[in-house]
Amino acid sequence: MDFSRANILITGGAGFIGANLARRLVGQGARVTLVDSFIPEYGGNEANLDGIRDSVTLNITDVRDPYAMRHLVRGQDFLFNLAGQTSHMDSMADPFTDLEINARAQLSILESCRGHNPGVKIIFAGTRQIYGRPDHLPVDEDHPVRPVDINGIHKVAGEWYHLLYHSVYGIRSTVLRLTNTYGPRMRIKDARQTFVGIWIRLLLEGRPFEVWGGGQLRDFTYVDDCVDAMLLAASPRADGRVYNLGGDCVVSLRTLAENLIAAHGGGDFILKEFPAERKKIDIGDYYSDDARIREDLGWGPKVALREGLQRTLEYFAPRLEQYL
Amino acid sequence: MDFSRANILITGGAGFIGANLARRLVGQGARVTLVDSFIPEYGGNEANLDGIRDSVTLNITDVRDPYAMRHLVRGQDFLFNLAGQTSHMDSMADPFTDLEINARAQLSILESCRGHNPGVKIIFAGTRQIYGRPDHLPVDEDHPVRPVDINGIHKVAGEWYHLLYHSVYGIRSTVLRLTNTYGPRMRIKDARQTFVGIWIRLLLEGRPFEVWGGGQLRDFTYVDDCVDAMLLAASPRADGRVYNLGGDCVVSLRTLAENLIAAHGGGDFILKEFPAERKKIDIGDYYSDDARIREDLGWGPKVALREGLQRTLEYFAPRLEQYL
Repeated sequence: MDFSRANILITGGAGFIGANLARRLVGQGARVTLVDSFIPEYGGNEANLDGIRDSVTLNITDVRDPYAMRHLVRGQDFLFNLAGQTSHMDSMADPFTDLEINARAQLSILESCRGHNPGVKIIFAGTRQIYGRPDHLPVDEDHPVRPVDINGIHKVAGEWYHLLYHSVYGIRSTVLRLTNTYGPRMRIKDARQTFVGIWIRLLLEGRPFEVWGGGQLRDFTYVDDCVDAMLLAASPRADGRVYNLGGDCVVSLRTLAENLIAAHGGGDFILKEFPAERKKIDIGDYYSDDARIREDLGWGPKVALREGLQRTLEYFAPRLEQYL
Repeated sequence: MDFSRANILITGGAGFIGANLARRLVGQGARVTLVDSFIPEYGGNEANLDGIRDSVTLNITDVRDPYAMRHLVRGQDFLFNLAGQTSHMDSMADPFTDLEINARAQLSILESCRGHNPGVKIIFAGTRQIYGRPDHLPVDEDHPVRPVDINGIHKVAGEWYHLLYHSVYGIRSTVLRLTNTYGPRMRIKDARQTFVGIWIRLLLEGRPFEVWGGGQLRDFTYVDDCVDAMLLAASPRADGRVYNLGGDCVVSLRTLAENLIAAHGGGDFILKEFPAERKKIDIGDYYSDDARIREDLGWGPKVALREGLQRTLEYFAPRLEQYL
């Protein structure tokens, strides 16, 4: 795909994946508008825009504002729809906010596109969280969806809206179900985006981080690989389709922790029992079958786990305070 | 189950199934409170309460009112949660209203129960519509859910909330996935609740009704059988479970029309092509595998289709104008 001079809107554009995507698109000559509300508990961070701040239009608003979004979607060629509430615990503590952001705002954005820009191509960031406890591994896209928390219920609604607006109204949308994604510009202040964030923070602060359980298997996508997938998903071939993303390998959390410490050249972690209050919404082992996107779109992860962890630590080490 | 002197709240209590359920529970000596908002496009109808008006507490409010609902759930032993927006076409024309009623209000009711009446037993009226176009027939509860309209997306969210509040918080809830339900007190003014309603109206008015397609297979539950299932689902054995309801037989829409006319002793229908604008959200053939509720709870339909249609026509014939 040629994105030069393309008009592109990224919701959650100052967040982790949004800012990395924006950087890539700016480099390709696209006209990029970022929407972000900079809610302190979410992923948006001004530091994520260092170096591209003058090459993008930053529009500070909330995807829950239907009038702002209606105006902003007009004239866009591509909408990378990444804004979301990502914390599973927060979704249980405040289910209505999760509903507003992950369900209602998504419906509202799609209605805006249908009414004011039906030719736009939308790439939606879904999540593997919606599979719940897997019936089998690896998990392909036809695995039943079975959310184990409020966030999962609303993320399913969000992706179904996108697919429905494709099948009924012909809005060109593609859903990527992301697995754990990591890399520069992720939220590291706490575990709201991913537990890997807080591990990195503590490691860089010279403090031990906690590994809960340790045996659970996961796959991890380095953010540049995720951005590759987003750009490939812009292709008409992907319209109306759902794709899992996977990682370059499957590791236990303990192995991940060991790799992180090796990449850093030192550090400690504490192995802890999985906390009781999180047990009910834990999903056990998970890793993706990502054969569909490999076959359809030629995607594949290029950055190996150790290399990705190294790059992530190198990014955060000199600018830690901007992320706390 | 013994419902005598039990405190019971029925949302959508002046509607089709709610009013039939209320009648049965009043007969068993329960203390029944009905919540209904009497929105003209929905199922609530004062005529549905004839004969039980003085034996129930009618509370006119909307399930979208969180304060009213918070107050009303207190002290209830059972909550039959039947209020909903049921029209598939309306959900596409106004997806936000469908979201508010079928998703947000459900979440709000469950939060109220969690906070103010965690011991209540909730029976939630789900729908077979969430299966979308079936992969195989009959459709059992493990069939993937794959909604084909906005209503389906939100009905899935509604039932998942109920199941999640059971698994995470121990709220005792049971989901019944209803198939086409018919009988006295259904909405017959139009096809908003079911197409069978408008068929009955036109037949009783001496006008031909339209059958779209005609070959589609369906099963139909007579409302008394549905009420049986609701009462059985109140059992602790059903906590946290999902059950399909089915009918006593599987018929094509054309056969249903012929049975209706035979039950009435005359009348006409016009066979029409399935309208193009509905084609996109049509699901083809559907009928339930209801073995699970038969085995677990001993449910089974008792009223045969022809008998049920006869009773329905006999109910509406002398009071048609109250339903127009």
